[in-house]
Amino acid sequence: MRPSGRASNELRPITIERHFTKHAEGSVLISFGDTRVLCTASVTEGVPPFMRGQGRGWVTAEYGMLPRATNTRNNREAARGKQSGRTVEIGRLIGRALRNAVDLQALGEYTVTLDCDVLQADGGTRTAAITGACVALVDGLRSLQRDKKLLTDPLRHMVAAVSVGLYKGEPVLDLDYIEDSQADTDLNVVMTDSEGFVEVQGTAEGEPLAGEDLNRLLALAREGIVDLVAAQQAALTEA
Amino acid sequence: MRPSGRASNELRPITIERHFTKHAEGSVLISFGDTRVLCTASVTEGVPPFMRGQGRGWVTAEYGMLPRATNTRNNREAARGKQSGRTVEIGRLIGRALRNAVDLQALGEYTVTLDCDVLQADGGTRTAAITGACVALVDGLRSLQRDKKLLTDPLRHMVAAVSVGLYKGEPVLDLDYIEDSQADTDLNVVMTDSEGFVEVQGTAEGEPLAGEDLNRLLALAREGIVDLVAAQQAALTEA
Amino acid sequence: MRPSGRASNELRPITIERHFTKHAEGSVLISFGDTRVLCTASVTEGVPPFMRGQGRGWVTAEYGMLPRATNTRNNREAARGKQSGRTVEIGRLIGRALRNAVDLQALGEYTVTLDCDVLQADGGTRTAAITGACVALVDGLRSLQRDKKLLTDPLRHMVAAVSVGLYKGEPVLDLDYIEDSQADTDLNVVMTDSEGFVEVQGTAEGEPLAGEDLNRLLALAREGIVDLVAAQQAALTEA
Amino acid sequence: MRPSGRASNELRPITIERHFTKHAEGSVLISFGDTRVLCTASVTEGVPPFMRGQGRGWVTAEYGMLPRATNTRNNREAARGKQSGRTVEIGRLIGRALRNAVDLQALGEYTVTLDCDVLQADGGTRTAAITGACVALVDGLRSLQRDKKLLTDPLRHMVAAVSVGLYKGEPVLDLDYIEDSQADTDLNVVMTDSEGFVEVQGTAEGEPLAGEDLNRLLALAREGIVDLVAAQQAALTEA
Amino acid sequence: MRPSGRASNELRPITIERHFTKHAEGSVLISFGDTRVLCTASVTEGVPPFMRGQGRGWVTAEYGMLPRATNTRNNREAARGKQSGRTVEIGRLIGRALRNAVDLQALGEYTVTLDCDVLQADGGTRTAAITGACVALVDGLRSLQRDKKLLTDPLRHMVAAVSVGLYKGEPVLDLDYIEDSQADTDLNVVMTDSEGFVEVQGTAEGEPLAGEDLNRLLALAREGIVDLVAAQQAALTEA
Amino acid sequence: MRPSGRASNELRPITIERHFTKHAEGSVLISFGDTRVLCTASVTEGVPPFMRGQGRGWVTAEYGMLPRATNTRNNREAARGKQSGRTVEIGRLIGRALRNAVDLQALGEYTVTLDCDVLQADGGTRTAAITGACVALVDGLRSLQRDKKLLTDPLRHMVAAVSVGLYKGEPVLDLDYIEDSQADTDLNVVMTDSEGFVEVQGTAEGEPLAGEDLNRLLALAREGIVDLVAAQQAALTEA
Repeated sequence: MRPSGRASNELRPITIERHFTKHAEGSVLISFGDTRVLCTASVTEGVPPFMRGQGRGWVTAEYGMLPRATNTRNNREAARGKQSGRTVEIGRLIGRALRNAVDLQALGEYTVTLDCDVLQADGGTRTAAITGACVALVDGLRSLQRDKKLLTDPLRHMVAAVSVGLYKGEPVLDLDYIEDSQADTDLNVVMTDSEGFVEVQGTAEGEPLAGEDLNRLLALAREGIVDLVAAQQAALTEA
Repeated sequence: MRPSGRASNELRPITIERHFTKHAEGSVLISFGDTRVLCTASVTEGVPPFMRGQGRGWVTAEYGMLPRATNTRNNREAARGKQSGRTVEIGRLIGRALRNAVDLQALGEYTVTLDCDVLQADGGTRTAAITGACVALVDGLRSLQRDKKLLTDPLRHMVAAVSVGLYKGEPVLDLDYIEDSQADTDLNVVMTDSEGFVEVQGTAEGEPLAGEDLNRLLALAREGIVDLVAAQQAALTEA
Repeated sequence: MRPSGRASNELRPITIERHFTKHAEGSVLISFGDTRVLCTASVTEGVPPFMRGQGRGWVTAEYGMLPRATNTRNNREAARGKQSGRTVEIGRLIGRALRNAVDLQALGEYTVTLDCDVLQADGGTRTAAITGACVALVDGLRSLQRDKKLLTDPLRHMVAAVSVGLYKGEPVLDLDYIEDSQADTDLNVVMTDSEGFVEVQGTAEGEPLAGEDLNRLLALAREGIVDLVAAQQAALTEA
Repeated sequence: MRPSGRASNELRPITIERHFTKHAEGSVLISFGDTRVLCTASVTEGVPPFMRGQGRGWVTAEYGMLPRATNTRNNREAARGKQSGRTVEIGRLIGRALRNAVDLQALGEYTVTLDCDVLQADGGTRTAAITGACVALVDGLRSLQRDKKLLTDPLRHMVAAVSVGLYKGEPVLDLDYIEDSQADTDLNVVMTDSEGFVEVQGTAEGEPLAGEDLNRLLALAREGIVDLVAAQQAALTEA
Repeated sequence: MRPSGRASNELRPITIERHFTKHAEGSVLISFGDTRVLCTASVTEGVPPFMRGQGRGWVTAEYGMLPRATNTRNNREAARGKQSGRTVEIGRLIGRALRNAVDLQALGEYTVTLDCDVLQADGGTRTAAITGACVALVDGLRSLQRDKKLLTDPLRHMVAAVSVGLYKGEPVLDLDYIEDSQADTDLNVVMTDSEGFVEVQGTAEGEPLAGEDLNRLLALAREGIVDLVAAQQAALTEA
Repeated sequence: MRPSGRASNELRPITIERHFTKHAEGSVLISFGDTRVLCTASVTEGVPPFMRGQGRGWVTAEYGMLPRATNTRNNREAARGKQSGRTVEIGRLIGRALRNAVDLQALGEYTVTLDCDVLQADGGTRTAAITGACVALVDGLRSLQRDKKLLTDPLRHMVAAVSVGLYKGEPVLDLDYIEDSQADTDLNVVMTDSEGFVEVQGTAEGEPLAGEDLNRLLALAREGIVDLVAAQQAALTEA
C-alpha cells in the first residue's frame, strides 16, 4: 500500500498551466501532485560560441529550487556562490532531454533556454521539470513561427519524464517524497510520445536491481509517459 | 497622464494570497499589478553566531529574481556564482525593514528568514517584497505561538512599502516598469501601520530634488501605505 | 550632550588634501574627524559595453576598507573572495551620487572611476567618501580639459554628503562611531551645492521616525552640506 | 566494423596496476585501452557532519582530468575556480556506485574517499574510474582489517562499469573516443559481480532508443561486466 | 647613470612614520621614495587551528594594492573575487620574512597579522612592505608587553628588505619602477640586523646571472640593509 | 648522516620517461626518488591578449598535486574552488624558469603551456617539475619544427632545478620530505646548462643564513644541476 493510497501504476494529479508569467515566450506551471515547477522558455537569436556558424540551433536548461521549496530551508545557491552538484546534474539532464525533442538544424541559429524553478517540492521535481519544460518549449517554438522567423516546426517529438522505483519491494509509478526517501531503487525515465527512450537514469540505493525488475520498472514508466503526453497535448490544445 | 491610466495617487491592483506553498511557516504570493513576488518566512530555532547568548531573535531576508521574471532573460545568479550588487542591496533593505517590525527580545532565540523571489517583474519588486514579506512574517510568528514556543506576539507593528516618484514632473504613486524607467526621481518608502518611517531611500537620477517635492512625495507615499496596510490586514483576517 | 562635546549642528573638523598620491588624475585624502578616506579618480577613454556608441560618458565608484581601518580587524575582502553586502551597497551609493554631479553627455565617451578606500574609520565613511570623491572627480575632469580632450566642463554641480540622526532623542549632525552605534535613526543625505537632494537614505533602527523628525533631520543635513561644499570649494581653489 | 577492429562485444585491453603510488591506502592505475585513470582510496577516521553519531561509514568520490589528458588542452578547473558540470556529475556517479559496494554499517565511522584522476582520456573514463576505484576501495578496506580497525570485511560485492552504445546502428561494448563521438546512444552500466544493476545511465543523442535495443545493450553490458570483474579479481589476488 | 641620478649603492629617501592610523597596535607608513606602503600590525589572542595547543604564536601577512596605486588603474581584487598570483606570492613572502623575526615560543598563543597595503607604487613595494611591517610588528609586540600579556620581548631580530638588480649591466640598489621594468635581473633580499639572510629571491628575466654577479648583488643588498635597519631603529626610538 | 643514507652531494635516483601520455606535444614523467611529476607541454597557436601583435611567443605553467599525492589527503583545489597560495606561487616559479629557456622572439606567436601535476610527493616537487617540464618543452618545440611551423629552434638553453638546504647544520643536495621538514634553510635553485642562475629562492626557516653558508649551498646546487642536465640530455637523445 502506498502512503498516498495510489495504485502502483497511478500518477499523482497532473496540472499544466500555460502562460503563467507574461514575459517568457513559453511559461508553464506544472504540478505533479504537490510538486510544482515553473518552467519558462526564453528564445534568443544566436547560439553559444562553440556552435556558431553551423546554421544549427541550441537548446539548454537550468534548474533551481527556491530556498523554502522543501520542508526545511536550503541555503540560497546564489548567496553561497555555488550550485550544488545535484542542481548541476539535474540541469544537464533536462537540457539533454529537451535537446532531443528538437531538430537543431531546423531550428536554425536560435537558442532556447529552459529555466525550471521548483516552487514547491514533493519528489519528482526533475521529471515534472522535463514534462513542463517540453510544453514551454513548444510555446517558444510557436512564437518563432508566429513571428515568421521559422517557417516549419522544428519539434521532432514531445518528451515527458516520470520516476519509477521499488517501494517496499513493489514497482510504483511517480514516487512522491515519502516514497522516494524510502525506495530501494529510483529510476528516472524520459521518453518520447512514440515511446522511444531518451534518457534512463537509475540508481539502486540498497539492493542491486535484478534484470527482470528493471524491465518491470521500464514497463511501468512507459504507462506513465503515455498519460503525461496526453496531459501535455491537452494543455497545448488550449489557446 | 500615466501610461496605465491610473490616477497619480492610485496603487495598482494589490492581491495577497497566503499559504501559496505548503512547507514554509509563512508563504505569500503578492501582486502589485503585474509584479508578482513569492515571499516565504522560514522559522528556525537558534540565531546566527554574532547574536548568540543574548536571548534575542533575528530576522533576515534574501531577494532573488527568476531568470525570466523580466522582459529579457537575466543570467541565473547561482550559475554565475555571484549575486549582483542590486540583489544584495535589496536583500539588505528587506531585512532591515522587517527587523523593525519585530521585538527581537520578545522573539527570543529564533530566526525568521524571509525569502522574496520575484516570479514576474513590472517595477516595484522591492516594495511588493517588503509588503508581502510582512504578511509571511506574521504567519511565521503565529506558527511559533500556535506551537506554544512563544506565549506573546513579538510583532511590534506591520510594515509596508511603496515607491513614489516624479514622472514627467508629477508625483506618482507605485510606479510600474514603464514609469520607473523614465522617472527623474524614485523614492522607496517603508512605513509602519501607524505612519512612522522605517526606511526612506530615494535617488534623483536626473535633476536634484527640491525640498518641497520631497515632501509631496512623502505625503503621497503615506497615502499608499494606508491602503497597503489595509490589504495586509484583510489578508490576515482570512483563515 | 554629544560624547565629543560638539554642538548638535556641528561637523567634525574637515580636512581635504588634494594630490595625496601621484598617479591618479584626482587623488584626495579627506578627513571627517578621525574618519579618513583616500578617494582617487581614474579617467579612462571609453565606456562600459552597455553604454557604447551613445556618445555619453560614465561615472562609477568602488568602496573598500583596509582590514585594520576599524577597531578590530576585518577579514580582507580580496582574500575572502567576496565583497560584503555593506561594501557593495556603499559603492553603489557613491556611484549614483557622483553620477548625478556630471553631465554625461558633455563628458563624452570617457569613464571616471572613483575608488574610495577607508584608511581609518570612525563613523560616516560613506559620507566622507562622497564628499572627497567629488573633489577628486573635479580634478579628474580638469585633467581632461587641460589635455584638451574636453573643451567644456561637464560638471553640473558639486555634491556633498553628511549623516544625521537621532542620538538620545536629539537630532545631531555628522555622527561619529560612538553616536552611530547608539543612534535610533541614521540618515545619509547627499545634496548639491544648490541644496537639491540627490540621495536620501535613512533607516530607523529602533523607533519608527515621525514625519516632523524626518523634516528636522533633513534641515540639519542641509546646514552641514553648506559647510562641506564650502570646504570643497576652498580645497579646489588651491593649486 | 569498429574503427579499432574490435568485435562488437570485445573490451579494449584492460590492465589494472595496484600500488601505483605509495601514500594512499589503495592506489590503482587502470587502463581501458588508451584511457588511463589513477584511482586512489583514502581512508580516514570519522564521517561528514550529516552522518555523525549513527555508527555508519561513508564512501565518496571525486573525479578530475589532467588538463592535457585530452586531445586539446582543457583549462585547469582549480585555476578557473570551478568544476565543470560534467566533472561534478561524474564524481557523483562514481560515489553512488562505490557506496553500493560497501555495507556502511559494517564499515563503522570511517570515510573512504575515492579520487579518480584521468591521466589520459580515450572514451569511457567514468567506467574505467568506477572499475578501478572498486579495486582501490578493496585495498582501502583491507588496510582497515590489517590494522585491526575492522574485524570483518564490509565489502558487499564488487562493482564494475562499462559503456555500451549504438554505433552505426549496431550495439557495441566499451566505446572508445572515436565511437563515442559518433554514437547515437551511449549507455553507462554499473553492475555487481552477481550481475545486479547498480546504476544505468543512458542518453539517446539522436534517435530515441527502442525498447528492444535497450535490452540488447543491457545484455551486452552484462557480458563486459563479467570480464571486468574477472580482471578485478585477478588483480586482487596478486600481492 | 641611473634615471634618478642616484649612485648605484644609494637608497631612495626612506621615511618611516609610526602611529599613522589609530586603531592598529602597530601602524606604519613607510616610503621608499615614491613607493608608499601602509603597514599595520593587528594583535589578537589565539592562533589558527593548525597551531592550537602548542603554546606557540603565529605571525602572518597579507598584501594589497589600492586600485590606483599604479600608473594605470588595476581592477579591485575584492570586486573580481580573486587575488592575483602576484598578490598571493608577495603576501606569503612577507609572512615568512616577519615570522623569522619572532621567537614564536616566546610569543605564546597570540597572532600578529601584518597588513601591507600599497597606497602608491613606484617599484620595490614588497621590500618596503617588509621593512615597514617589521616596525609595525615591534609596536605590536610592545603593546603586548605594555599590557603585561608578555613579560619578555619575543623579537629575535629586526628584518629589512631591499631589491638589487642589474640595470644596463651594472648592479644597482633599491630599484625604482623605471629601473625595475628594464632590469635584466631583479633580486629581493631579506636580511636581519646582524646581516644573516632570511630570504633571497631572484629572477633573471633576460640573461642568466653569473655566479660573480650574484655575489656582487648580494654584497650591494647588504649595504642597503644596514641603512634600512638604521632607519628602522631611528623611527623606533621616537615615542 | 642523511635519513636516506645518501652522501651530502648525492641526488636521489633520477628517471625521465618521455611520451608518458599520447595527446600532449611533450609528455614527461620525471622522478626524483619517490617524487613523481607528470609534465606536459601543450603547444597552441596564438598568444594571450596582452602579448598580441608583437610577433613574440609565450611560455606559461600551471602546477597541481593530486589529492592523495601526499601522506594525508589534501582537499581537491578544483572542488574547493580556489588554488592555494603555495600552488599559485609554484606555478609562477615554473613559468618564469621555463620562459627563460626560450627565445620568445624566435618562438613567434605560439604559446607553450606546461602543466606539472604531482602524482606522488616526497619533497622537491617544484624542482622536479621544472627539470621535467624543460624536457617536455623541448619535445613541444621539436613538434613545431617537425610540422615546419618553425624553421629554427627557439631553445636558448636547458634549465634544471634542484633544492639544497642545511640539514642538521650540513649542506645537503636534493632534500627529500623528511629532510625538508626538518631543514633550517631550504633553497631552490634554477640554473641553465651553462651554469647561469635563472632563479634563486631561499628561505631561512630557523636561523638566518650566513653569507658563507649561502655560498656553500649555491656551490652544491651547481653540482646537482650538472647531473640533472646530463639526465635531461640522455633522455632527449632517445627516440
